[in-house]
Amino acid sequence: MAYDIAALKARLDGIRLEENPALVRQRSRDFYWYSPTLKRQLDTVTADIVAFATTQDEVLTILAACAELAIPVTPRGAGTGNYGQAMPLAGGVVLDLSGLTRIVEIAHGRVRAEAGAIIADIDAACRPGGQELRLHPSTYRTASIGGFIAGGSGGVGSITWGGLRDLGNIIGLKVATMEPQPRILALSGEEVQKVAHAYGTNGIILEVEMPLAPAFEWIEAIIGFDDFARAAAYANALGEQDAMLKKLLSVIAAPLPQTYFARHRPYLPAGQHIVLVMVAPIARAAFDSFTARWGGRLLFDSDAVGTEDAKGLPPLYELSWNHTTLRALRLDPAITYLQTLYPFPNQLDLAARIHAELGDEVPAHLEFVRFDGKVTCFGLPLVRFSTEERLEAIIARHEAIGIPVFNPHRYTLEEGGMKQTDAAQLAFKRAADPAGLLNPGKMIAWDQPDFDFGAGRTYLFAGLAGKDGAP
Amino acid sequence: MAYDIAALKARLDGIRLEENPALVRQRSRDFYWYSPTLKRQLDTVTADIVAFATTQDEVLTILAACAELAIPVTPRGAGTGNYGQAMPLAGGVVLDLSGLTRIVEIAHGRVRAEAGAIIADIDAACRPGGQELRLHPSTYRTASIGGFIAGGSGGVGSITWGGLRDLGNIIGLKVATMEPQPRILALSGEEVQKVAHAYGTNGIILEVEMPLAPAFEWIEAIIGFDDFARAAAYANALGEQDAMLKKLLSVIAAPLPQTYFARHRPYLPAGQHIVLVMVAPIARAAFDSFTARWGGRLLFDSDAVGTEDAKGLPPLYELSWNHTTLRALRLDPAITYLQTLYPFPNQLDLAARIHAELGDEVPAHLEFVRFDGKVTCFGLPLVRFSTEERLEAIIARHEAIGIPVFNPHRYTLEEGGMKQTDAAQLAFKRAADPAGLLNPGKMIAWDQPDFDFGAGRTYLFAGLAGKDGAP
Repeated sequence: MAYDIAALKARLDGIRLEENPALVRQRSRDFYWYSPTLKRQLDTVTADIVAFATTQDEVLTILAACAELAIPVTPRGAGTGNYGQAMPLAGGVVLDLSGLTRIVEIAHGRVRAEAGAIIADIDAACRPGGQELRLHPSTYRTASIGGFIAGGSGGVGSITWGGLRDLGNIIGLKVATMEPQPRILALSGEEVQKVAHAYGTNGIILEVEMPLAPAFEWIEAIIGFDDFARAAAYANALGEQDAMLKKLLSVIAAPLPQTYFARHRPYLPAGQHIVLVMVAPIARAAFDSFTARWGGRLLFDSDAVGTEDAKGLPPLYELSWNHTTLRALRLDPAITYLQTLYPFPNQLDLAARIHAELGDEVPAHLEFVRFDGKVTCFGLPLVRFSTEERLEAIIARHEAIGIPVFNPHRYTLEEGGMKQTDAAQLAFKRAADPAGLLNPGKMIAWDQPDFDFGAGRTYLFAGLAGKDGAP
Repeated sequence: MAYDIAALKARLDGIRLEENPALVRQRSRDFYWYSPTLKRQLDTVTADIVAFATTQDEVLTILAACAELAIPVTPRGAGTGNYGQAMPLAGGVVLDLSGLTRIVEIAHGRVRAEAGAIIADIDAACRPGGQELRLHPSTYRTASIGGFIAGGSGGVGSITWGGLRDLGNIIGLKVATMEPQPRILALSGEEVQKVAHAYGTNGIILEVEMPLAPAFEWIEAIIGFDDFARAAAYANALGEQDAMLKKLLSVIAAPLPQTYFARHRPYLPAGQHIVLVMVAPIARAAFDSFTARWGGRLLFDSDAVGTEDAKGLPPLYELSWNHTTLRALRLDPAITYLQTLYPFPNQLDLAARIHAELGDEVPAHLEFVRFDGKVTCFGLPLVRFSTEERLEAIIARHEAIGIPVFNPHRYTLEEGGMKQTDAAQLAFKRAADPAGLLNPGKMIAWDQPDFDFGAGRTYLFAGLAGKDGAP
């Protein structure tokens, strides 16, 4: 479909635009290439033009113009997603929000910032007051807070605070609607869930208000075990230690750490299954006692590493969550991954069982979290990719034994999530984006209300199917 | 047994002492009279003399003198215990530590204070830095931090942080031994558990180091439900909301609140089973959404109460934990109570079942907490007391259906606790109090190593049995 880009440009006088195809293409992609499936499907996706907003007023101007001209708008923060969240399947405008960086207010227990503010920058501004954000993705140093909320789910900090879907982890959102006269809505309480993790399909997040936790110089520790199941059991038990303040609790099966964590390799003896821990300094002695009880080997301890040795090391959280995948991919392009949940109370059995069955092809990586008030773990196992058919078979095998898969090889909200319509998000889209111009192709419930999630078919956005390279 | 008090006085020149029998008796008791059994057993217990320490050096002087003269020493903080923890069963010296009030250091995430410091005073000192203690008993405004650690287990804050037994809720303890030349020991990590909740039987706590959490002007809310089981289910679900910062979550069955919470009575319609909630202001909107989902009635809301109305009201935590019992006792001296645990994952079934069976005689009061990483509840049900035999039968009935009872009608560590020897505490007593002079009669494992906890017999301390009024 051809859009009237010339008319759009006339209306956006004074706003920074980019039409150079190479640069537009660059701003039209994220880390979708983690998935060979998405890479095949989305590799040629590109917008017609990128509009860079630096103020909220500019966002409203862009939305109004696009609404009148019926040009799709796909919002983008820092482009650190993995599912093509910010990729414009129908072309049109990529609305780059990375210029909306203002930190509006820091108070006791909360911060208000514009959507494009980088998470690490928000923390840096909060740190003098002894505070920091509860949650961040492993892309802490590059991701925007609005992008995290629109496209993420949790990460570092989830072992204490749960995920973004939990009521209270987002205090409020200021959202613009996609209309010729955009409205600004203030959402709080459970209303935020209409827009959080909706990939920007039903509103543009302008500002966020997030809770803050005490900031610490978190101790980074790597604990080793000879046995994978023992490492997982230790992590689970440490997760259940309510009084030890933690920020990260990851389990990564040998030989992944030894193979892929290049800078930390000197600390990682062969055969050791490792647990990554970020724990508050006030819990130091308790943590040491607890780890000694379990017979864990303290392989790495940021308190004990000399400043010279520490210089070359990435922060521990950049070995965790999807950075584990990234490090593997950098060394071995045939690697991809899954996202799974090992439901409480069977998480240890399920994780050990699937690792015993598929561990050579699908080596285990667990991230312990609080989920519905209990400690359990997500999995981000690596996959030594062969074919898409085999990948589907691996997913089916997980689901057959009771391990739900949040499929990271799908670009739609529903297929990558709960595989069902989110009625609240759909209703909000009807009100806030009546013409369906925001990030088209990502919400199946909007595009194809009769799609059968149970039929085992992959949804293909019609607007995408017409493009080169689409299946 | 007669002690050489004259020789002791000569050695304690310059230290404040009290020998007036009425005043000594006053300082020899706590809230043991919550229990009719303990009231009968302990009513005549008194020390020979009270020694008031105002410095740690004075504590060492007193301990050295008593160790040389073989005079028992029972430490006392503010005397807010309920089990006779600080009552000198063998007479001798009550060591009053309420003069040790110095707050030694406040840092990010932790505070170091002397044992006699009042908990509310510690918080007042920490508040300008935006911090407060994680946990406190309902006797917040009167209890000492050392007494809480030596004789308490948890309370307000346990819904987020678990209990004092959890590694990390006590960072460190500075302890004096009971020897002619007392040693000072610094305990940290799991070592603190040797002395915590040991009633001062195996060392005298001089200083404590405790973790701090962010301080808030906690919202106080009372939520009403028509149905007790529904109130409990709501509280359990709210407890499992990882992202809503809470400090208190109590369920009290009708008609207890209406009968005993005099000042709050205007807010408490007849028949409403209530949930007491202290929640952080940053969780306000999330809390309101969550409560609306459950159909809870917001009966009381500190945000909505005028300052004039608020003046006459006690803080919400003074309706909770053992203050619930205290309020009932004040109006009805025939009331006593139990302390129970409803083990996860059956807490709701067990609480509803025993309340349905015994609710008229043993009306329910639940305190939701984190326990071993899960949300569950303790019970502090009231008991309409008839006879000690009936009380024992009620306890037996609880235990028969899987509800452990931490019997608050026993003055020993073991019978009021896990009904088994704590080997670490016993071993520490051998090293730190070799002559067995600290708080005699409270640790059965020391006094009578062959006592059979399974035989259903109540332990009677020999030194106490010889006194008037003992059984």
